[in-house]
Amino acid sequence: MNARAIEGLPEVHPGDDLAALLAEHTEAGQVVVIAHKVVSKAEGRIRALAGIEPGAEAEALAAKLGKDPRHVQAVLDESLEIVRDERVLICRTRHGFVCANAGVDQSNAPADSVILLPADPDASARALRAALPGRPAVVIADSFGRAWRLGQCDVAIGIAGLAPVDDWHGRVDRSGRRLHATAIAIADEAAAAADLARAGKDAGEPVVIVSGLERFVTDEDGPGAAALVRGRDDDLFL
Amino acid sequence: MNARAIEGLPEVHPGDDLAALLAEHTEAGQVVVIAHKVVSKAEGRIRALAGIEPGAEAEALAAKLGKDPRHVQAVLDESLEIVRDERVLICRTRHGFVCANAGVDQSNAPADSVILLPADPDASARALRAALPGRPAVVIADSFGRAWRLGQCDVAIGIAGLAPVDDWHGRVDRSGRRLHATAIAIADEAAAAADLARAGKDAGEPVVIVSGLERFVTDEDGPGAAALVRGRDDDLFL
Repeated sequence: MNARAIEGLPEVHPGDDLAALLAEHTEAGQVVVIAHKVVSKAEGRIRALAGIEPGAEAEALAAKLGKDPRHVQAVLDESLEIVRDERVLICRTRHGFVCANAGVDQSNAPADSVILLPADPDASARALRAALPGRPAVVIADSFGRAWRLGQCDVAIGIAGLAPVDDWHGRVDRSGRRLHATAIAIADEAAAAADLARAGKDAGEPVVIVSGLERFVTDEDGPGAAALVRGRDDDLFL
Repeated sequence: MNARAIEGLPEVHPGDDLAALLAEHTEAGQVVVIAHKVVSKAEGRIRALAGIEPGAEAEALAAKLGKDPRHVQAVLDESLEIVRDERVLICRTRHGFVCANAGVDQSNAPADSVILLPADPDASARALRAALPGRPAVVIADSFGRAWRLGQCDVAIGIAGLAPVDDWHGRVDRSGRRLHATAIAIADEAAAAADLARAGKDAGEPVVIVSGLERFVTDEDGPGAAALVRGRDDDLFL
């Protein structure tokens, strides 16, 4: 497997055509991993803080956590549920993802504004795939923290044309023993691999081309990252 | 970044010299990612079920979960704490990792036995690194499930010579804004990348060589995977 960042991409602005920017770099069978920030910027998923009127809940949470109430209101607007509010807002987003601040972030954002997650990252991935030469798989990635482990790993929040999971349930190991609980999160591992191919968070390398995963690239766009959301009642860890 | 599995490694047995098996494949600056099962086998971390006498707690949990009480006893012996016991045993291991069955697993194990995690995976990684030509970084990997997301990703349970985390705290993004909460779990992402380079859980490819991560390879062995354990009181998610 090989992962390499595309160099020299320009800063992306609302309305920019990502497919046109990437067209010369893509081929069939590849996986194009793209940081969500770029997709969100192209889609105009940016809110100026000046235009946000915080409500009472946002004011209270902001006071508790020492945050800007307008930023907190933007987080609440993207959240189905606040999972924890002790030191950081851990939110369940409208997509079902559980992450800090519902993915609403100021880093690499225009001044005095916040960037949101794409409204429908699977749809964004499908649209980008359809427009790219060779119809490579597309993964939209974001950095998520994890329960029990320090540090963030990139995960797939939007997927088109890549198996979200490689399910070994019912298959057998080398000694013929049935594997019960093995389902490999292929798209999340691809997002993690791509993150390592970037020079850094300040490098302006939001798009990574991964090759060698052809066996997981599908002709159908497939169920997307929605298939990775573990239902609250199915969560073995909580 | 490039990740490729070593082909043609033989089945590993207790007492085998892993460094001798891998010596011809390693160079300075690489990251050698090795599935824990192979390390555990070489170190004899295997228990025959016939030799395990389950206690009352193991019997009760086994009845509740429909498992072999001897397997459950092996899990308890490796656990500091049972975190959940609803449908799967989620355990905090003696190393501080939170995972299903404390990493005690029957797949790819000899008949009627279970394989345990290495007793001290960081020490195992350091010893292997010291014995390998070029002193490449060594990561010992296992597949962990995640709260809130379906599927397993490989993570680093033992590390020598690779930064566990690349901490951007205090550094700035492209627009000069300070990054507050960005610490990238480099070793976990390397384990995930390596997992994608294997042909499958039945392929007998437990060792993957990752190149292109030289900037994260350190001369010192470093703090190891112990540095990735989030203390119970520091957990923002729970």
